[in-house]
Amino acid sequence: MSFTLAQRAHKMNPSVIREILKVTERPGIISFAGGLPSPDTFPIDAMREASERVLSQDGRAALQYAASEGLPQLREWVAQDLKKQGMQVSPDQVLITTGSQQGLDLVAKVLIDAGSKILVETPTYLGALQAFMPMEPSVVSVDSDDEGVVAEDLRAKAQDARFIYLLPNFQNPTGRTMSEARRAAVARVAQDTGLPVIEDNPYGDLWFDQPPGVSLSARLPEQSLYLGSFSKILAPGLRLGYVVAPKALYPKLLQAKQAADLHTPSFNQRVVAEVLKDGFIERHVPTIRALYKRQCEAMLQALDRDMAGLGVSWNRPAGGMFLWAQLPAGMDAVQLLPKAVDKGVAFVPGAAFYAAQAVQETLRLSFVTSTVEQIRTGVAALAQTIRDNLPR
Amino acid sequence: MSFTLAQRAHKMNPSVIREILKVTERPGIISFAGGLPSPDTFPIDAMREASERVLSQDGRAALQYAASEGLPQLREWVAQDLKKQGMQVSPDQVLITTGSQQGLDLVAKVLIDAGSKILVETPTYLGALQAFMPMEPSVVSVDSDDEGVVAEDLRAKAQDARFIYLLPNFQNPTGRTMSEARRAAVARVAQDTGLPVIEDNPYGDLWFDQPPGVSLSARLPEQSLYLGSFSKILAPGLRLGYVVAPKALYPKLLQAKQAADLHTPSFNQRVVAEVLKDGFIERHVPTIRALYKRQCEAMLQALDRDMAGLGVSWNRPAGGMFLWAQLPAGMDAVQLLPKAVDKGVAFVPGAAFYAAQAVQETLRLSFVTSTVEQIRTGVAALAQTIRDNLPR
Repeated sequence: MSFTLAQRAHKMNPSVIREILKVTERPGIISFAGGLPSPDTFPIDAMREASERVLSQDGRAALQYAASEGLPQLREWVAQDLKKQGMQVSPDQVLITTGSQQGLDLVAKVLIDAGSKILVETPTYLGALQAFMPMEPSVVSVDSDDEGVVAEDLRAKAQDARFIYLLPNFQNPTGRTMSEARRAAVARVAQDTGLPVIEDNPYGDLWFDQPPGVSLSARLPEQSLYLGSFSKILAPGLRLGYVVAPKALYPKLLQAKQAADLHTPSFNQRVVAEVLKDGFIERHVPTIRALYKRQCEAMLQALDRDMAGLGVSWNRPAGGMFLWAQLPAGMDAVQLLPKAVDKGVAFVPGAAFYAAQAVQETLRLSFVTSTVEQIRTGVAALAQTIRDNLPR
Repeated sequence: MSFTLAQRAHKMNPSVIREILKVTERPGIISFAGGLPSPDTFPIDAMREASERVLSQDGRAALQYAASEGLPQLREWVAQDLKKQGMQVSPDQVLITTGSQQGLDLVAKVLIDAGSKILVETPTYLGALQAFMPMEPSVVSVDSDDEGVVAEDLRAKAQDARFIYLLPNFQNPTGRTMSEARRAAVARVAQDTGLPVIEDNPYGDLWFDQPPGVSLSARLPEQSLYLGSFSKILAPGLRLGYVVAPKALYPKLLQAKQAADLHTPSFNQRVVAEVLKDGFIERHVPTIRALYKRQCEAMLQALDRDMAGLGVSWNRPAGGMFLWAQLPAGMDAVQLLPKAVDKGVAFVPGAAFYAAQAVQETLRLSFVTSTVEQIRTGVAALAQTIRDNLPR
């Protein structure tokens, strides 16, 4: 090849897990592996009406170049919506992005030098690692438990770190939520040490019984970046997310955004702004919560029934799309996967989500894209696979 | 501010020109400054019909996550369409991007290390410089004349360069087109030296009387990257472009794409694939060509009439959106701009488009977003401004 690759390109590698998961896409496999929302929740009719209105009323503007900051109406909606997270932000602090994955890419460009120390939870979102790695950081995992990142370990590792990246609500991959006490403790560490917080909240609206606690960004307005998304409350195929930044940092993110893709598609922004009018989200999101809660309960019931006596443990998420399970000690989820696929069920081995030493026994199960019946059949098949592979 | 910026973020600065141009956005100003296509050319009705069909027939898929490579039908359409550029490519070589600006961002990430020498035309596209700069290259300008980049100077500067970035057709900012002899000479230099070519072709379809020459990528299939866009033949607000890469380089671009925004909005890809069915482009693009040709001719006629005797020169583009003018020696286009705005007309000073020493006398005029009458009025006002500011 006549091209010379940049050093960073050598650090971009196809995910081993992604290669394994290709096997799971064959028809007939019940997949708990996907990170996709349920298409049953997509507001197709509202999108049809909004697309028609936008193109007939504002077609020329919807199809023209637009400001890199994003559509004013949408930025205002976001600023207003964030009040429920306890955040007081101006629309001027909202930057519309091409999905929140782009927010992570902009964060990486603006805040990471080669060798910069950055902190992540254990485990953490794989897509964030993929966005950060090209800027060649030194990634340090902070100890985490069922309540989230451990404040004492965070304090011990905070010095000289560029930021900690956190998903406090219904985290991907674990489904866990940071407790109120833990939020307060983490905010205190951040205040004491000056450590900036990158708070990623794609799932926060998907609570089952009660909303999660007040965001870290509400407690740390000058030293946090907040990432949000329309992927889980409307639809991911629109690629619409946003970053909320302190005013001092905003211009740099904006310049990075402009260089990255000029602006997020004006058409999509206008259609979504039209969908959002008149309180659509307040009517729509409860239907997603109810569906996901039902599916989560079905999975928990199936696990309770089928995994009894196998030495498997799992958590009970209070929202979101995922739960996190642990196989009997010494059983490797990567090795178990092809055997599970042979029995008709797939999951993501947890190893994919660790920046440092992986816990090989872990796995992520999505409960949102399978029907209740598929969940029962799939969990039974998974239990049988584990039973067949128990150490003798 | 508690955030520590990455080194590269210090190199991202608001464009001085962009700040100046904000003044030109006030109502009543005839602007030749924009880089926007004419909204009269946007296929609004075709978009309405296609959006309705996509949402009613494939709504769930159109709103779901999708493959990072892009929609297969769209990749096939691109591969087929590129035959008219003399290119024989497989759909597997086509990566759909969120506008061709994102293609430039991916190129930068995959091919530029801090300090890497990269070559550009004199002058060159400002957005490409903005995409490349965050990866901290050393940018070297190659001498260019009316036929494009000068082959001898390219040969002299090729050693150790990561690539040359070129817009062979109706270039932004100059509107010039690389002659057939120059294409052959540049391809020969690339073959002799192994220099990779990044060929950006957003305007190639907008020819007035005859298509431009065969692409450089057709001559250099293994050592070129080709960037294309739907922004100028359909609409820029969709943010839809593509990169065509040799098979050896494709996986790295794909990984960078995945980290950047997962994938380009599936909704937009499906709507455009639907619009493109049944030869729509073959019917639609000739209407854009005819409009822009008429407007270009109006501007040339107005320049011929109003600039006579002022010592101003300009080129006669064979397509695209821009022409390039040179003021009398010693007259600075940046200083002239506010005076022109006072007389009701705006342009972009050419200085914005030079990677190294700018030619202060140059300016870029867009002929596509003003009516023929506005063009006449605007050119007259510009001529009067120049006359009033001639050195005595």
